[in-house]
Amino acid sequence: MSETILEKTEGRVSYHDSVEEMLVRIREDGMSNVFDRYAAQEKIRCKFCLQGLSCQQCSQGPCRINEKGEQDKGVCGIGPDAMAMRKLLLQNIMGAGTYSHHAYEAYRTLKATGEGKTPFKIKDVAKLKWMCEKLGIDANQEVNQMAIQLADLLENQQRVGVEEPNLMVEAFAPKKRKEVWRNTNLYPAGTMHEEQNCVASCLTNVDGNYASLAIKALRLGLATIYNSQIGLEMVQDILFGTPQPHEVDVDLGIMDPDYVNIVFNGHQPWAGAALIEKAQASEVQQQAKAAGAKGLRVVGSIETGQELLQRFKMDGVFVGLMGNWLAIEPLLATGTVDVIAMEENCSPPAIDMYAEKYQATLVAISTIIDIPGLQHKIPYDPSEVDKMVDTLIELGIENFKKRHGKIKPMVPQKTTKAIAGFSTEAVLGALGNKLDPLVEVIVAGKIKGVVALANCSTLRNGPHDWNTVNLTKELIKKDILVVAGGCGNHGLEVAGLCNLDAINIAGPGLKEVCGALKIPPVLSFGTCTDTGRISMLVSALADHLDVDVPQLPIAVTAPEWMEQKATIDGVFAVAYGAYTHLSPTPFVTGGLQLVKLLTEDVEGITGGKIALGDDPVEVANNIEAHINLKRKGLGLN
Amino acid sequence: MSETILEKTEGRVSYHDSVEEMLVRIREDGMSNVFDRYAAQEKIRCKFCLQGLSCQQCSQGPCRINEKGEQDKGVCGIGPDAMAMRKLLLQNIMGAGTYSHHAYEAYRTLKATGEGKTPFKIKDVAKLKWMCEKLGIDANQEVNQMAIQLADLLENQQRVGVEEPNLMVEAFAPKKRKEVWRNTNLYPAGTMHEEQNCVASCLTNVDGNYASLAIKALRLGLATIYNSQIGLEMVQDILFGTPQPHEVDVDLGIMDPDYVNIVFNGHQPWAGAALIEKAQASEVQQQAKAAGAKGLRVVGSIETGQELLQRFKMDGVFVGLMGNWLAIEPLLATGTVDVIAMEENCSPPAIDMYAEKYQATLVAISTIIDIPGLQHKIPYDPSEVDKMVDTLIELGIENFKKRHGKIKPMVPQKTTKAIAGFSTEAVLGALGNKLDPLVEVIVAGKIKGVVALANCSTLRNGPHDWNTVNLTKELIKKDILVVAGGCGNHGLEVAGLCNLDAINIAGPGLKEVCGALKIPPVLSFGTCTDTGRISMLVSALADHLDVDVPQLPIAVTAPEWMEQKATIDGVFAVAYGAYTHLSPTPFVTGGLQLVKLLTEDVEGITGGKIALGDDPVEVANNIEAHINLKRKGLGLN
Repeated sequence: MSETILEKTEGRVSYHDSVEEMLVRIREDGMSNVFDRYAAQEKIRCKFCLQGLSCQQCSQGPCRINEKGEQDKGVCGIGPDAMAMRKLLLQNIMGAGTYSHHAYEAYRTLKATGEGKTPFKIKDVAKLKWMCEKLGIDANQEVNQMAIQLADLLENQQRVGVEEPNLMVEAFAPKKRKEVWRNTNLYPAGTMHEEQNCVASCLTNVDGNYASLAIKALRLGLATIYNSQIGLEMVQDILFGTPQPHEVDVDLGIMDPDYVNIVFNGHQPWAGAALIEKAQASEVQQQAKAAGAKGLRVVGSIETGQELLQRFKMDGVFVGLMGNWLAIEPLLATGTVDVIAMEENCSPPAIDMYAEKYQATLVAISTIIDIPGLQHKIPYDPSEVDKMVDTLIELGIENFKKRHGKIKPMVPQKTTKAIAGFSTEAVLGALGNKLDPLVEVIVAGKIKGVVALANCSTLRNGPHDWNTVNLTKELIKKDILVVAGGCGNHGLEVAGLCNLDAINIAGPGLKEVCGALKIPPVLSFGTCTDTGRISMLVSALADHLDVDVPQLPIAVTAPEWMEQKATIDGVFAVAYGAYTHLSPTPFVTGGLQLVKLLTEDVEGITGGKIALGDDPVEVANNIEAHINLKRKGLGLN
Repeated sequence: MSETILEKTEGRVSYHDSVEEMLVRIREDGMSNVFDRYAAQEKIRCKFCLQGLSCQQCSQGPCRINEKGEQDKGVCGIGPDAMAMRKLLLQNIMGAGTYSHHAYEAYRTLKATGEGKTPFKIKDVAKLKWMCEKLGIDANQEVNQMAIQLADLLENQQRVGVEEPNLMVEAFAPKKRKEVWRNTNLYPAGTMHEEQNCVASCLTNVDGNYASLAIKALRLGLATIYNSQIGLEMVQDILFGTPQPHEVDVDLGIMDPDYVNIVFNGHQPWAGAALIEKAQASEVQQQAKAAGAKGLRVVGSIETGQELLQRFKMDGVFVGLMGNWLAIEPLLATGTVDVIAMEENCSPPAIDMYAEKYQATLVAISTIIDIPGLQHKIPYDPSEVDKMVDTLIELGIENFKKRHGKIKPMVPQKTTKAIAGFSTEAVLGALGNKLDPLVEVIVAGKIKGVVALANCSTLRNGPHDWNTVNLTKELIKKDILVVAGGCGNHGLEVAGLCNLDAINIAGPGLKEVCGALKIPPVLSFGTCTDTGRISMLVSALADHLDVDVPQLPIAVTAPEWMEQKATIDGVFAVAYGAYTHLSPTPFVTGGLQLVKLLTEDVEGITGGKIALGDDPVEVANNIEAHINLKRKGLGLN
């Protein structure tokens, strides 16, 4: 599979020229890098692991299942389907746990802000009130008090057990879905309760039934999106403003070696947002200038960058987004980074050698992050954000003095425009605050359907962003609107698919709609954490039409999922009732009954299912066929 | 390693004759079984996995580290130490998650009992008051109100974040330890908070530093023992009585085919305790007799059996403990089991074929359990316990009708006596409610030291229970008192080391003390969940002597750890400051720096460390040397 695609792309490792260009330097400098490590691992892959047929959980293992041999079960007695599903559930748990960690940080930041302990303010009071109204909190009280109450409620919602109501699901799930979930044992408790149940279920000799494990995964997916993702994104909107479309700069060309460059990498916007505000002050810029720099800049890296991109303008201090996670090593190799401040994923663990070679300072700004060679570790505490930001400025300036003039910079001259900042509110705004215009163009077939792309970036199914970009091109050609989140979205932004020029490669119907509304055919909805935000648009559509999600002409794709958060987004989408394309194929193929459950039988339970496939043209055709089927079901041509 | 030991034991698969005897039937009947599956897996073990040098987390994997080749890192860049430690931390998380699930069930059972919704009563009011006093709850209020308040507090304690005090650690940890943990970033928040942080840290590209991951594991261990284990065991004492030593029957010989036999397997005592009480009623026995049985009996299996054993007498209804988890398939093969009611671990996933062949009914009585071929699933709900028990009685009688006279029973005629039910309170009681007599015999060298054995049972380092039994024999010979919990404890009970006859094989000093106190040289302290209970005795000793844990002549051993709960008990012991022997060697040997950290350097942080070794004689010598060193430190001979 990957071989064929690599052939087609004639030895490239990335869709993006900027990354290809940097890789020349990286290799010349003899640096280990993710692209070459991938090639090296290809030589010693374990075929059992690829199929999900290995287990290393207990001391009686490691076990492998070889159905042609006598090893048709693990020592404990576990069979191939449960072995593979348990591993997938463990991945799901990691994803859910990370989202709920992010939510925990968001909720305590909101609370501390209400208490006046952070540099942040409640920027979007209307959204705060809206959330409070949806959740039964008095919206006619003092704003900060309201924020504190909302924060407490949301944090508690993450933890609720089976005996308390799940207010977030009640408030945000499509009407008809809730009924389905109640009837199929999928209606979730809070994320942490489900996580706990799933973790305990994965223990050796607890849940050995693949179908039961799969149901747990689906339920965990629902908890994660409603109790963690949607909650945290709404809180970030309250603190930093609900995203609105605006033009931004992306790709490695945004780097300028003559500035003190402070890069924020990960998923959480706290420190980055605080620094963007703070660095507007002339004294901060003066400090940088005193060290010989032209000033101090904030650079967005991967999802943290995207969170900032959605809510802040390019203003000379904040200069845009460099790309997604596979571009981190290339970014560091430009020799222009002074501080890379990291929280959550993705902070690749071998960048210490880049920090050394190209003189960058590695700083963790979270309790969960660490990597070898980390120079500074500042655990996140909302009431200490201001101090944290001061430290980052100091570290940046110190690094600049060591870097500038000593490390030869090399910046690919590639910058692209993208329109970032779509949200349900923004889409509705563009449509005159009603969904009917969207319904009309769908009914008319100008937009055949909507595909949500939520995704990472991986090398397994081709070069960096190759599959994401090519699938998206195929979809928009077919008049299918793409709504994107995650590292895949950054790939699309860098590839130029999120700007108005991309209208030209859309199909005729979509071209007409996008041209009229002045929107790109790919709507940048944010990060992987915005999977929940994307679902809000679909939920609104379902409720507006009084139909259930599986009836809609929509689909979900993760054409380059890489890590575990993507897997929980994927299972959410299936539970939500969506046709959910995943590439690469998860490590489950050794469990034949499991594959049948996930790709066929689950449709009878949730209306959703997993679709596989690594070829963008074929996948796009399958998605189109699915959308046409659903259109037909609704009586549309 | 295992080969040598297996040679020594001349082809046996178990220390216990009863299990060996049943295996003859199992093999004659052509049944897949854990012993033969182990042998089959030995042929296709992955050497990378054995060393912790494989990773299947993300779609860029599976990766392997081959330091002789070009693959010295995973694709993401993770190195061997962090790769191995992350896998160990994931095991720890599963263990912590399962204990905290058990605690969740305990706390809501206590609450429901206070609310009058369960068949249970507050049996140990003194303990309830004692707990309330320790935790700042008014102990002069109505008993049920007090129970509800305690349940709420304990449940909340599992969840506390970094901003709230950890009341359980404050109340139960040794004085000097708390200081150490504060200074080393090991002082924990609640179990679920730490779990969450650890889960998020394990995500791809989050924590790539083995030392940071190891610190997280240690902290999680502390949270688990204080917020989950000790809390839940105290609650079980409150509900069912604090364990007191009494004589019980163990081994497969307790089975009588002419009764309706309802087996409780797992770790949680709720339904078993309710049935023991209920089945005293003559109408229940009459129901069974009407079906042609001599009556209805409750059989304890593994840890659930042990929980019952500690608190209930052998009374004709409750007939004792069958053994530990490797005896489950043999138990089913006796053809005497009518219902096996399962919760938590260990319910091996391939027992459906046994249920079919030997006519047993498989019932899950928990939200987390499932296995292929499961016939009935009753999620645990404290307010429905009585109904659940009625269903089990019905199912048992129905099964008896199908089984009796149709399936040929085969029961090994092996039953042993054990003294179960030791607890800190019981030990103190035996010593006249003060620790001085224990201190005196330790000072006098009659007891050289105390070893806590908390453990599973595994085939990796020799036959079933072989290492556990042999190591224990070596220790007591050296005048070292063994305090035991877990499946290993059941192995010792079945092997006859927990009865007064075993005094004869103890060393002279221990023999004298045990003879005088009429206690065995191995004190059965319960289950793996009683690791916390065991630590309470050690903590009392440390505080009594005003020394810190690492100064005491004590050690911990897990000579046959198997699953993930054992790994969290192990890391707890290291954080607690104990010399902690583990066999088999965890899958970490590919991380050389990690091995050094866990076996050497960690001593500089916590005072504890991991000791390895699979030979019982050598391990006992090492433990003795450690104990002698600590005696010397305290000025004892």
